[in-house]
Amino acid sequence: MNPSVSDADAYAGALELLRQGQRFVLCGHVRPDGDVLGAQAALHSVLERLGKSVWIINSDPLPSQLDYLAEGAKYHVYDGGQLPAHDVAVMLDFNELERTGPMAKPLEAARSRKLVVDHHIFEGQPWWDAAYVDVRAAATGLLVRRIARDLGVPLDLRAAHGVYTSIVADTGWFKYSNTDAETFAAASEAVALGVEPARLYNSIYQRQSRQHPLGIARALSRLEYYADGRLAVVDLPQAREGEVELTDGDDILDLLRAVGRVEVVLFLREQKDGAVKLSARSKTDFNVHSLARRFGGGGHAKASGATFSGASIADVRARVVAAALEGFSQRGAAAR
Amino acid sequence: MNPSVSDADAYAGALELLRQGQRFVLCGHVRPDGDVLGAQAALHSVLERLGKSVWIINSDPLPSQLDYLAEGAKYHVYDGGQLPAHDVAVMLDFNELERTGPMAKPLEAARSRKLVVDHHIFEGQPWWDAAYVDVRAAATGLLVRRIARDLGVPLDLRAAHGVYTSIVADTGWFKYSNTDAETFAAASEAVALGVEPARLYNSIYQRQSRQHPLGIARALSRLEYYADGRLAVVDLPQAREGEVELTDGDDILDLLRAVGRVEVVLFLREQKDGAVKLSARSKTDFNVHSLARRFGGGGHAKASGATFSGASIADVRARVVAAALEGFSQRGAAAR
Repeated sequence: MNPSVSDADAYAGALELLRQGQRFVLCGHVRPDGDVLGAQAALHSVLERLGKSVWIINSDPLPSQLDYLAEGAKYHVYDGGQLPAHDVAVMLDFNELERTGPMAKPLEAARSRKLVVDHHIFEGQPWWDAAYVDVRAAATGLLVRRIARDLGVPLDLRAAHGVYTSIVADTGWFKYSNTDAETFAAASEAVALGVEPARLYNSIYQRQSRQHPLGIARALSRLEYYADGRLAVVDLPQAREGEVELTDGDDILDLLRAVGRVEVVLFLREQKDGAVKLSARSKTDFNVHSLARRFGGGGHAKASGATFSGASIADVRARVVAAALEGFSQRGAAAR
Repeated sequence: MNPSVSDADAYAGALELLRQGQRFVLCGHVRPDGDVLGAQAALHSVLERLGKSVWIINSDPLPSQLDYLAEGAKYHVYDGGQLPAHDVAVMLDFNELERTGPMAKPLEAARSRKLVVDHHIFEGQPWWDAAYVDVRAAATGLLVRRIARDLGVPLDLRAAHGVYTSIVADTGWFKYSNTDAETFAAASEAVALGVEPARLYNSIYQRQSRQHPLGIARALSRLEYYADGRLAVVDLPQAREGEVELTDGDDILDLLRAVGRVEVVLFLREQKDGAVKLSARSKTDFNVHSLARRFGGGGHAKASGATFSGASIADVRARVVAAALEGFSQRGAAAR
């Protein structure tokens, strides 16, 4: 039995580990996102105020758009050597050690106790000393906020920046269906503590290159619709001489999802090494996770992806579009 | 003296009018936006639950993306005849009768008492019977929420939809600098009452036409930068044969603001009648209101506009870009 929401005893065990420990490392998964990095900032602030020694350490550096999180906490990048001496290692926003990449082996070897704080489903055998899991939570930062409350440590401005960053990363700035009353209550508290939403929005989302809008234009000009407009597909080969490379594909996905009739968006990009990366998004009950799984990929029902090697982007496109059309017709058949 | 925030006496007078009145009309400005329409829905619900008879009436219809607001309240469109018999007319989100367009004359002639509930600056002579004004409020819907609290009427789901709609309309879905702790607290309350953010986001923002992404691509392909990349300019002539017309320019403004170096965005569109419409946005202290005023337009420091008649879009572009460059060099000189 491995519950998707920790019971009171499990949560008490997690709090006890946080109270007892003296030297902490706070670990994120590889390519840490705003949820990981914000939760680390928040927990760092809370534990420091309890007099603990705390290291934030990840396999990859803090992205520049989140550099405000480093005001008051150093984000260490694991260099392959010894981990800092610690008695508790906290895993934030993941539940399998391998997700820490090169840190997994030294973490496993360390005689520290392991605490998982996470909001993902886990179907394996528990391997940790304690865990606080709630798959209903919109972001890991919200779990840290609950922990702070139950440890009796009020959030300060630094922790509030962390919680706010976690929230906006995992809710797509309050747009996704996981945005709940707790999410907005935490945002309200963060703003009352001094977080400035417009400043953070600018830092996180308004740092594109001069070329970015032209990359968007090039990608959108390749748009094709299928399935009576319910399927929108963009494929983007590597830029040739004189063409602009697209740096960030998120805007494409957003702009195509904004079309009223569109249910599914497929965005295929040719990588530098010739591999083709698929990003699939659904606005309806069409399950893009099933689609991605057919090609060895994964994700969620509404957001999934896959990577293809050894095939041209045109070939990949044909296969993926065919599979999506099959999905539409199967769904149509099931509905009849 | 005409305060930008009503004092306790003025507010008490506004509440008294709401308590005493029996037959209300709730009026919005022409081309009502989400703030007007949401505030109308919320106040309609509150007053109905106090046993009042309430009409919502505007000069223009409810836009289809907000049609969920009409579940429980009819949005009447003024037809030029008699206004419904009423003893109190409430003006929501504006402070001059002329802003109601064709309703201004009959409203003025009506022997009803006039109540203004608004968050805009007003510099003229008070003409109303009572007013509740707070220019610090992010949205008029937040003022209605305070009124509901002080009338002792808890928000219901319908009022919550109204408040939430007001908020997201005037904060750009929590992105603008007016987004404060009260904004998020009201959103949290609305979600606790059953509002689904993802569903409303879909209804409000994800109803574009199939052609919209191609219109975006066409517009972005005309992008030019000036002032070392601090000024981004797009001009968009009317579509010719085979070209796609852009239906909604907001995405262009957003995509250009997302460029890190950009401070000011100018978007010029040729209208069907040959006039040219300017939308100007600023991310910094560059004041686009001053810029728009030079051409007879108006707005706010960070978002303004103007309309040009009798000149080609190329000529308008040259004049506006020159004025903006002058603004940059004056600001540079002032900083030295």
